[in-house]
Amino acid sequence: MSRRYDSRTTIFSPEGRLYQVEYAMEAISNAGASIGLLAKDGVVLIAEKKITSKLLDTHAVGVRREKMYRIDNHIACSVAGITADANILINTCRLAAQRYLFAYQEPMPVEQLVRTVCDTKQGYTQFGGQRPFGVSLLYAGWDEHYGFQLYQSDPSGNYGGWKAVAIGAGHQAANNLLKSDFKEDLPLSEAIPFIIKVLAKSMDTSLAPDKVELATISRDAASGKVVYKIYDAPELTPLLDAANAEKEAAAQS
Amino acid sequence: MSRRYDSRTTIFSPEGRLYQVEYAMEAISNAGASIGLLAKDGVVLIAEKKITSKLLDTHAVGVRREKMYRIDNHIACSVAGITADANILINTCRLAAQRYLFAYQEPMPVEQLVRTVCDTKQGYTQFGGQRPFGVSLLYAGWDEHYGFQLYQSDPSGNYGGWKAVAIGAGHQAANNLLKSDFKEDLPLSEAIPFIIKVLAKSMDTSLAPDKVELATISRDAASGKVVYKIYDAPELTPLLDAANAEKEAAAQS
Amino acid sequence: MSRRYDSRTTIFSPEGRLYQVEYAMEAISNAGASIGLLAKDGVVLIAEKKITSKLLDTHAVGVRREKMYRIDNHIACSVAGITADANILINTCRLAAQRYLFAYQEPMPVEQLVRTVCDTKQGYTQFGGQRPFGVSLLYAGWDEHYGFQLYQSDPSGNYGGWKAVAIGAGHQAANNLLKSDFKEDLPLSEAIPFIIKVLAKSMDTSLAPDKVELATISRDAASGKVVYKIYDAPELTPLLDAANAEKEAAAQS
Amino acid sequence: MSRRYDSRTTIFSPEGRLYQVEYAMEAISNAGASIGLLAKDGVVLIAEKKITSKLLDTHAVGVRREKMYRIDNHIACSVAGITADANILINTCRLAAQRYLFAYQEPMPVEQLVRTVCDTKQGYTQFGGQRPFGVSLLYAGWDEHYGFQLYQSDPSGNYGGWKAVAIGAGHQAANNLLKSDFKEDLPLSEAIPFIIKVLAKSMDTSLAPDKVELATISRDAASGKVVYKIYDAPELTPLLDAANAEKEAAAQS
Amino acid sequence: MSRRYDSRTTIFSPEGRLYQVEYAMEAISNAGASIGLLAKDGVVLIAEKKITSKLLDTHAVGVRREKMYRIDNHIACSVAGITADANILINTCRLAAQRYLFAYQEPMPVEQLVRTVCDTKQGYTQFGGQRPFGVSLLYAGWDEHYGFQLYQSDPSGNYGGWKAVAIGAGHQAANNLLKSDFKEDLPLSEAIPFIIKVLAKSMDTSLAPDKVELATISRDAASGKVVYKIYDAPELTPLLDAANAEKEAAAQS
Amino acid sequence: MSRRYDSRTTIFSPEGRLYQVEYAMEAISNAGASIGLLAKDGVVLIAEKKITSKLLDTHAVGVRREKMYRIDNHIACSVAGITADANILINTCRLAAQRYLFAYQEPMPVEQLVRTVCDTKQGYTQFGGQRPFGVSLLYAGWDEHYGFQLYQSDPSGNYGGWKAVAIGAGHQAANNLLKSDFKEDLPLSEAIPFIIKVLAKSMDTSLAPDKVELATISRDAASGKVVYKIYDAPELTPLLDAANAEKEAAAQS
Amino acid sequence: MSRRYDSRTTIFSPEGRLYQVEYAMEAISNAGASIGLLAKDGVVLIAEKKITSKLLDTHAVGVRREKMYRIDNHIACSVAGITADANILINTCRLAAQRYLFAYQEPMPVEQLVRTVCDTKQGYTQFGGQRPFGVSLLYAGWDEHYGFQLYQSDPSGNYGGWKAVAIGAGHQAANNLLKSDFKEDLPLSEAIPFIIKVLAKSMDTSLAPDKVELATISRDAASGKVVYKIYDAPELTPLLDAANAEKEAAAQS
Repeated sequence: MSRRYDSRTTIFSPEGRLYQVEYAMEAISNAGASIGLLAKDGVVLIAEKKITSKLLDTHAVGVRREKMYRIDNHIACSVAGITADANILINTCRLAAQRYLFAYQEPMPVEQLVRTVCDTKQGYTQFGGQRPFGVSLLYAGWDEHYGFQLYQSDPSGNYGGWKAVAIGAGHQAANNLLKSDFKEDLPLSEAIPFIIKVLAKSMDTSLAPDKVELATISRDAASGKVVYKIYDAPELTPLLDAANAEKEAAAQS
Repeated sequence: MSRRYDSRTTIFSPEGRLYQVEYAMEAISNAGASIGLLAKDGVVLIAEKKITSKLLDTHAVGVRREKMYRIDNHIACSVAGITADANILINTCRLAAQRYLFAYQEPMPVEQLVRTVCDTKQGYTQFGGQRPFGVSLLYAGWDEHYGFQLYQSDPSGNYGGWKAVAIGAGHQAANNLLKSDFKEDLPLSEAIPFIIKVLAKSMDTSLAPDKVELATISRDAASGKVVYKIYDAPELTPLLDAANAEKEAAAQS
Repeated sequence: MSRRYDSRTTIFSPEGRLYQVEYAMEAISNAGASIGLLAKDGVVLIAEKKITSKLLDTHAVGVRREKMYRIDNHIACSVAGITADANILINTCRLAAQRYLFAYQEPMPVEQLVRTVCDTKQGYTQFGGQRPFGVSLLYAGWDEHYGFQLYQSDPSGNYGGWKAVAIGAGHQAANNLLKSDFKEDLPLSEAIPFIIKVLAKSMDTSLAPDKVELATISRDAASGKVVYKIYDAPELTPLLDAANAEKEAAAQS
Repeated sequence: MSRRYDSRTTIFSPEGRLYQVEYAMEAISNAGASIGLLAKDGVVLIAEKKITSKLLDTHAVGVRREKMYRIDNHIACSVAGITADANILINTCRLAAQRYLFAYQEPMPVEQLVRTVCDTKQGYTQFGGQRPFGVSLLYAGWDEHYGFQLYQSDPSGNYGGWKAVAIGAGHQAANNLLKSDFKEDLPLSEAIPFIIKVLAKSMDTSLAPDKVELATISRDAASGKVVYKIYDAPELTPLLDAANAEKEAAAQS
Repeated sequence: MSRRYDSRTTIFSPEGRLYQVEYAMEAISNAGASIGLLAKDGVVLIAEKKITSKLLDTHAVGVRREKMYRIDNHIACSVAGITADANILINTCRLAAQRYLFAYQEPMPVEQLVRTVCDTKQGYTQFGGQRPFGVSLLYAGWDEHYGFQLYQSDPSGNYGGWKAVAIGAGHQAANNLLKSDFKEDLPLSEAIPFIIKVLAKSMDTSLAPDKVELATISRDAASGKVVYKIYDAPELTPLLDAANAEKEAAAQS
Repeated sequence: MSRRYDSRTTIFSPEGRLYQVEYAMEAISNAGASIGLLAKDGVVLIAEKKITSKLLDTHAVGVRREKMYRIDNHIACSVAGITADANILINTCRLAAQRYLFAYQEPMPVEQLVRTVCDTKQGYTQFGGQRPFGVSLLYAGWDEHYGFQLYQSDPSGNYGGWKAVAIGAGHQAANNLLKSDFKEDLPLSEAIPFIIKVLAKSMDTSLAPDKVELATISRDAASGKVVYKIYDAPELTPLLDAANAEKEAAAQS
Repeated sequence: MSRRYDSRTTIFSPEGRLYQVEYAMEAISNAGASIGLLAKDGVVLIAEKKITSKLLDTHAVGVRREKMYRIDNHIACSVAGITADANILINTCRLAAQRYLFAYQEPMPVEQLVRTVCDTKQGYTQFGGQRPFGVSLLYAGWDEHYGFQLYQSDPSGNYGGWKAVAIGAGHQAANNLLKSDFKEDLPLSEAIPFIIKVLAKSMDTSLAPDKVELATISRDAASGKVVYKIYDAPELTPLLDAANAEKEAAAQS
């Protein structure tokens, strides 16, 4: 029945659904998970890499990330879905942020950037001759108006502000974990182990530094500057090991 | 039978119906309800939020609303339907209002703004390669010509002026309640409890501050300036509790 | 059989018919009726409003009409069909009239305005990627060349000058009544009760001021200026009551 | 079989036919007939009006004709088919004639005007996204090169010069009558009764002034100016009565 | 089987055929024949008119030809196929010839003109949204480079230089006759009776001046100017009678 | 099965094939063969003409070739496939060569010209609304960088440099002959009889001067200028007779 | 089932897959393999040529490569898939590299070039009226920021940095071999025999110089300039023989 209405973005089904948008969301459910969490003194993003091979060339850490993108000094994104689509949207983000900075000589407010990307996304769900973007994004940022913020947007162009949210494979399990265990105003130092634990529980396999990317947005205590930090393997390993151990213990009991 | 004519906006069915527009209206029937009411000294808008989670970040109250939008000093909108579509139309509203203000140095008359949006909406029902906007809007405003006003527009681009009207899920039940219980020239102080009661009765669950958004357009008694006010949880809670209690009492009797 | 040719405006059926145009006319048959009548000293338009609710806000009489539109000082329109489509065409009318006035410094001749709108309408029946306008219009006007005039146009872009004509729901019954009972050179004072009677007979329900809109184009006896007048409830009520009574009497006999 | 090739103007059928053009011609066969005749001292056009109602407003004789159009001082057209389509083509004619006059300061030669319209028509039979014009035209005119001329064009964009020709409903019967009874070099005074007789015989009903339009192109004997004349009811009635009587006599015998 | 590939010019069939082009050629097979012949001292074109009626107005001989067109002083065309399509291509020819003349101040070489038209034709067989031209052309001309020349082009945009060639109805019979009976270096005085005989044999009916058009391109013996000549009825009649007599004699024996 | 993917150039089949391109190649297999051969002191091209008639006008040898085209002083092409398509591509070649010459004041390198044409061809295999070019080309040329060169390109836009290659009807048989019998560094005087022999063996009928076109690109011994030479009948006849005799002898033994 | 969603790039299947992109990848699986390997002192690319014929003209080694392309002094590409598509993308690469060089007066960073090409590729998977590029690319390069680098991109526009990777026919077998046998920081002198061995094992036939293309990017020890080197047959033969021998030995044991 649904079939007659599911091959174009320009038609509603009789129930008022847009199937192509729903199918685009399906594309995201198979991609590696991303989880974001709003801490008292920062935002933390974690993501599971699906493509792992010892042959991958990862020595250019800052650049060749699969799931984490720095948009501007004060905003970072994590994606889940079709990577090539994500690259296009990330470019949209970066351009918007730089144009704002150039025009107003101050960093772009986080939500305004999110809205810009989402308006672009919406257009791909209303007009023919194209398909929706098959990618969801998490946006972590800080601005003067609302401090640290975490947003999530989906292929429909819808977005929301969250304290903690997961997208991609296993996002329902992760969201349930977040709902039951989340505590407000955690410092980053506690938020990071917590988010790793959530990711560990929603994955089938155990965590390893080459399968996980972790990034934080925080402010430098001295200068007040916003800092985007990617965690490298030496920093990650003890945290991941602890989470693996806890998961295993829970499984045995 | 209807199927041959329901997959494009550019064709009429043999009965002269535009099915795609009707399907777009169907999309709205599943969205959270919005109710508007024209009081003697203002207009009140109330809306039910469908997405509620304790993880939603709501501390940026003025900005990150799901169902209420401030268009200009003297006009506010409440929406029901696809949020991403609503964002686009709200942007259209804001641009139109600012352009008018810039060109004529006075606030845009309320109906003129409504008509501008509706002409945009109509175009999406007559031309191919796109779909109608899946969103209905309530517009509350005040201008010098006609004082306080309340309008409603639907995906076809049709609109009307109302004293009280409901859109979204349960809008039929709510409209019936409005029709039977509406009294003209209520002051805002009585209109607000009344509209909350109507929303309570048309919802399945009991009201809570995180599920309800309430806004008013009124004039400051002293300066005569038009005031857009969003009610926060402390203000809402006693009003909601009263409505919940009344509903429960009615259910038991 | 007809089905293969009825989903586009760009194809003829083997019998040389344009089904989409015919379907658009069908959309009009379900809309509230409009009747126009050419009197000796003016033109009278009457229309039945289908959407009536005591919650409709009607205090802004001059503006928020559902079926009557003032185009310029000397031309008025009544519509039947999809209201959102009508709004677009009414805008076309108003722009054309103002442009003519600006260019030639005299009011646009009535038929020239009608022809302009109809050429627009025709284009929507010959080119793909769009649908015909689902609306018929009555045009009442006065100009120096031909005095008082009454035109009717349909979705195909066809138009004609009439002494009396009805469009919308029950237009066939009304047209038959007009044919049998019409008298030439009635003064407006007699034409108005007559047209109300015709509307009453072609409607299922009895007439009420909130269901009927009546407007006249006439000339001020003193200044010779063309006057567009909308009748309000106090003026309408006795006229409607008389028509209702007569109808009832006829039904009982 | 034909069905696979009949829904677009951009495809030939295997026999090399263009069905959409043929269907457009079908649309003309149902429209009121038009007949043209080349006399020694002028051209006469006659047409049957299908829409007749005593409610039609016909006092603006010169303008509001259904089937006769004056293009320029020296050219007139009669049409059969979709009236709204005809209006567009008539506009094309008038613009072409005025542009020629403006550019060369002399009247446009008749055939050049015909060719201009026909090239427009042809385009609508070769390109997609539009339909052919559903209208045939008769052109009567005089120019210095070839004197009085009569042309006929059809939806394919084909045209020819004729001494006498009929289009629209019953055109085959009328053309047969013309072929058998036509005499060369008739003066207009004899050509008019003859063409009325032909129309009478090819119609089912008897002729009446409100069902017939008759126009002539001739030259003023004194000034040599080309004159376009529409016959009004008083002039037509005796001629029509004579034709009716003759037809009846023939039917009885 | 062929059906899947025959409704667009933009697709090949699995055998590499373009069915729409072949169907366009089919349209030509039903049109009146045209034959061209290259003589020693000129080129002769002859064509059969399918539409013959004593009501056709043919007194404007030079202009209102059905099958013969003068392109420039030194080039003439004869067509077979859809006349309205031919008119468009003839216009293309005339424009190209005049532009060349204007740019280089000398007549356009014949083959260059043919190539220009054929490139236009080819485009209509490769791009969507249009159909091929349903017309074949014969081009007769003289230029300084190659003297008298005769070309033929078909709907695919293909063309060739011929000594004698036939297109349209019965073209295969005519081509066979040409092949068997053609003699090189005939003077025009012998070529004309020969080509008439060929046409006579390939037609079902006997020849008559109103059914045949004959034109020659030759050079004036004195001035060397190229002369385009259309034969009128008095010149044609004895030639046609001779051919008819010969054909009849052959049929009886 | 293949049918679902074979009617557009814009879709891959599940096996990653582009059927429309393959069908375009099929169109070439039915066209007359062309063979090219790289000799020590030149390049030789030979082609079989499928359309032969004694009525063809061939006295304008240099121009009206069916299968051989001179692109510039130093490049020639032979084609196999749809002639009208070939004309368009040949024009592309000539324009490119002249533009290069004009811009850089030296002849265009052969491969650069081939690449230009092939990029054009590729575009017709990737975008909708058009079909691939149904023609393969052989390019023979000489430039300062790589001396004598021979290229072949097909409808996909793919090309390669060859020492000897055949396209069109019987190209597989001819290519096999070339592979088995080809010797490097033949002088033109031996290459020409060899290539004629290969063509003779891959054709069903015997060779005749009106069925064969032969051209060479070589350098004038004295001046070093590149020479494009078309062989006329007297030169060809003894060569063809020898090949026919040899073929007959082989058939009898 | 999948069929309803596999004929356009503009629709997702219900599982969120883009079948046309997957089919484009299928086109690559049938093309000759390419393997890239990142060595300590350079990058090596090797490719298998599928079209081999002794008639191919290969003396213009530097230019007429089938699988290896020099983009700029410091970047080279190897391709697998549709060659005509590859030519277009290679042109995109070269233009991008030259524009960057012209604008910033320094060589384009390798990843920036890869991203440019991939954004182009992505567009062909999201918009209608075109098909994805049927080609995967390996990019070998050196820049100041990250030294020697090796990237791979596929038709979806996705790309990644690798230490060793294979595309095209047998790419899975080759990738497995790479994974099991790859050693970090090999010098080029050891990397070349290793990559030849991998290619030999993943091919059915034995290696020969006319079937293999091998290229390296390295730096000149003295000047530090980046050097792109294509290996010719004499250099390749001993290496290929050794690999063939080893493969044979392994097969026998």
